[in-house]
Amino acid sequence: PKAIVEKLMNICVMTKEIAKDDPRKVIHSLKVGLSISLVSLFYFYQPLYENFGLSAMWAVMTVVVVFEFTVGATLGKGMNRTLATLTAGALGVGAHYLASLAGETAEPILIGFFVFLQAAIVSFIRFFPKMKARYDYGLLIFILTFSLISVSGFRDDEVLEMAHKRLSTIVIGGTACVMISIFVCPVWAGEELHYSIALNLEHLSNSLQEFVNKHFMASEEGDSNKDDNKSFLEGYKKVLNSKSSEDSLANFARWEPGHGKFKFRHPWDQYLKIGALTRQCAYRIEALINGHVNNNTPHIQGSSTTSSSEILGRIQEACIEMSMECSKALKELGSSIKKMTIPSSSSSQSKSASKKLKALLQSSLREQNTDLLSLIPAGTVASLLIDIVDCIEDLADSVN
Amino acid sequence: PKAIVEKLMNICVMTKEIAKDDPRKVIHSLKVGLSISLVSLFYFYQPLYENFGLSAMWAVMTVVVVFEFTVGATLGKGMNRTLATLTAGALGVGAHYLASLAGETAEPILIGFFVFLQAAIVSFIRFFPKMKARYDYGLLIFILTFSLISVSGFRDDEVLEMAHKRLSTIVIGGTACVMISIFVCPVWAGEELHYSIALNLEHLSNSLQEFVNKHFMASEEGDSNKDDNKSFLEGYKKVLNSKSSEDSLANFARWEPGHGKFKFRHPWDQYLKIGALTRQCAYRIEALINGHVNNNTPHIQGSSTTSSSEILGRIQEACIEMSMECSKALKELGSSIKKMTIPSSSSSQSKSASKKLKALLQSSLREQNTDLLSLIPAGTVASLLIDIVDCIEDLADSVN
Repeated sequence: PKAIVEKLMNICVMTKEIAKDDPRKVIHSLKVGLSISLVSLFYFYQPLYENFGLSAMWAVMTVVVVFEFTVGATLGKGMNRTLATLTAGALGVGAHYLASLAGETAEPILIGFFVFLQAAIVSFIRFFPKMKARYDYGLLIFILTFSLISVSGFRDDEVLEMAHKRLSTIVIGGTACVMISIFVCPVWAGEELHYSIALNLEHLSNSLQEFVNKHFMASEEGDSNKDDNKSFLEGYKKVLNSKSSEDSLANFARWEPGHGKFKFRHPWDQYLKIGALTRQCAYRIEALINGHVNNNTPHIQGSSTTSSSEILGRIQEACIEMSMECSKALKELGSSIKKMTIPSSSSSQSKSASKKLKALLQSSLREQNTDLLSLIPAGTVASLLIDIVDCIEDLADSVN
Repeated sequence: PKAIVEKLMNICVMTKEIAKDDPRKVIHSLKVGLSISLVSLFYFYQPLYENFGLSAMWAVMTVVVVFEFTVGATLGKGMNRTLATLTAGALGVGAHYLASLAGETAEPILIGFFVFLQAAIVSFIRFFPKMKARYDYGLLIFILTFSLISVSGFRDDEVLEMAHKRLSTIVIGGTACVMISIFVCPVWAGEELHYSIALNLEHLSNSLQEFVNKHFMASEEGDSNKDDNKSFLEGYKKVLNSKSSEDSLANFARWEPGHGKFKFRHPWDQYLKIGALTRQCAYRIEALINGHVNNNTPHIQGSSTTSSSEILGRIQEACIEMSMECSKALKELGSSIKKMTIPSSSSSQSKSASKKLKALLQSSLREQNTDLLSLIPAGTVASLLIDIVDCIEDLADSVN
C-alpha cells in the first residue's frame, strides 16, 4: 500500500508539472470533452436522432479520432477524413452496383475481389513517402469506407442512403472539431513551429554561454550553481533530434488558414531549412562541448603548467570572446525570428573575432611550441560555427 | 495530356523502385487485402451474419486500423484496442447503469457529464510521455468506446449485449490481423531494428572511407567516379536523424514474442544506447567531413606550398591510417552486431594509430612552425571518434 501511495503521489506531481509547463494541454483536454459532449446531442435530442439514427455514431467517432492538439493537425485530419469518405463512398456504391449486376452467386465473389484489390493498392500507395507525409490518414479511411460500404451493401440495399447519412454525420463531426479547435483557444502549428525554431537558436546560445562559463571560468566561479549550469549546457541536446517534430509541425502548418502574423501559404519550407542549419550548428556544438568536457580538460590543465601559460591565456581570451560573440549572434537571430524583423549584423562582430583568433593562433605557433592540441579544436569548431551563423542570417533575411 | 502521361510514367517508375527496394512492402499490401477479404466473410456467410449482425462492421474496422507493417506494431495496436475496448466497455455499461438509476430527466445530463469527464481526463493522460509512447492508441480507443457505449445506451437498452458483440468482433478482427502478420511472411520490428543499427555503423564506416579517398587522395584518383563517392560520403546523413525511427521500432519490438535469434525480452534498450552512440559518432563525422570539405580545403592546399610539405605529408599519412582504422573498426562492429558475435579487438589498432598521430603532432609542433590550423581538426575529431568506437565496443560486448 505504501508503494502504491507513493506512485500515486508521483503521478500527481507529474500531472501538476505537465499542466504548469503548458496550460494549453489542460485546455485541449477540456476542448475534447466539450466537443464530444456536444456531438452526443445527436443521441439525446429526439428530432436529430430521428434523422440520423445509428449513423450518429459516426459523428462521435469522427470527433474522437480527428481532434488533435494543433489546429493544423485537426484540419488536416478532418479534410482527409471527409474527402476520403466522399470518394471511397462513391466508389463503394459503384462497386456494389456493378457486383449486383452480376447475379446472386457472383456478387459476393466480385465484392470480395474488389475489396481485396483496393485494399492492396491503397496499402501500397501508403508507402509512397509524399503520400505518407500528408495523406496517410485519408488513405486509411479510404480503405475503411470502401470496404464497409461495398460489403454491407450486400446485406442492406439502401446503400446510397447509408453512404449519404454516414458522410453527413462525418462532415458534421469534423466541422464541430475544426470550429472548436479554431475558435476556442486555438493552438496553431505554424506558431508552434515559429517559436520552436527561435527557441532552438536560444538553446544553442545558452549552451555556448554556459560552456564558456563552466569551462574557461571554472576556477573563478567555483561550483556554486552547478545544477543550473548543467541544464543550460544540455540545451543543445534538444536541438539535435528536432527534425521529426519540425517536419510534422510544418506539415500541419500547411493545412492552416492565415492567422496572426502568418499569412496563408507562409513559407514553411524556409523554417525547415533554418531548422536544418540550426541542427548542423548543434552538431558542431555537440562536438565542441562533449569532446572538450570529456577528453581535453586534463590536457589543458596539464599544459597550463608545463607550457607557456601567457600565450595560452591569450588564446583562451580569444576563444572566450569568440564563443560569447557566437552566443550573442545566435540569441539575436532567435529573437529576430521571433519578432520577424531583419537581424542586425552582430554576426559580423563574431566574424572579426574569429579572424583575430586565427591570426593569433598562427602567430603563436610561429612564436613558440605549445601544446595546442587541446585548444585548437575549440577554435576550429567556433570558426565553423560562425560560417553557419552567416548561413542562418542569410536565411533569416530571406524569410523576412 | 502530355504532362499527365509524363506524370503517370513517373508514378510507375516510383512504384517499381519502391517494390524493388523492399519487396516486403508489396507482400504487406497483399496481406492487408487478404485479411480484409477474410473478415468480410462475416457479411457473406449467413450463419455468421445472423450471430453478429451489424457488429460485423467492427471486425472490418479493426483489421483496417490495426494492420501495420511490422508484427510488433500490429500486436501492440491489437492488444491496445482489445484491452481498451474491454475496460472502456465495462465502465461504459457501468455509467449507463448509474445514469439510468437517476431517472428520466437526469439521465442524459448525467451521461453527458460522464462522457465529458472521461474524455477530458483521458485526453490529458495522452500527454504523459510514457503513455504516449506505448498506449496512445489504446487511450484513444478508450475514449471512443466509452462514449459510444454509454451514449448509445440511452437509445438502446441492450447495452450489455451490444458491448459483448462489439468486443468479440474486435477480438476476432484483431486475432485475424495478428495471425496473418505473424504467419504470412512476418516482418519483425526487432529484426528491423537490429539490422538498421548494424547498417548505420556501416554507413559511418563507408563515409569515413570515402572521406579519405576523396579528400586525401583526390590528386591521385581524379574525378572519375564522383557520383559514386558522393552517395557513400552522404551515408552518415541517414544516421543523424535516425532517433525517432529507432525509438518507435524499439517500442514495437517490445510487443513481439521471441523469434529467430531474439528471445522474448531481448535487451532492446541496449540497441537504443548503441544507436545513440552511433549518432554521436555521426555528429563528429559530420563536423569532420562538412567542415573539412567546405572550409579548410583551400587552407591545406595553400599550406602545402607555403610550409614544409614533408611534415604535412607525414601527418596526412597518420590521418589516413587513423581514418582507415576507424572505418575498419566501425565496419567490424557493424558486422559483429549483425552476426551477434563478440567483436575482436581491431579497435585497439585504431587506438594505437591515434596515439601515433598524437605523438606525431606534438613532435612536429616542437620541430617546426607549420600552418597546422587546417589539419589538426581532422586529427582531433578522429581521436574523438576512437573514444566513441571504444564505447560502442563496450556496449556490443554487453549485448552479446
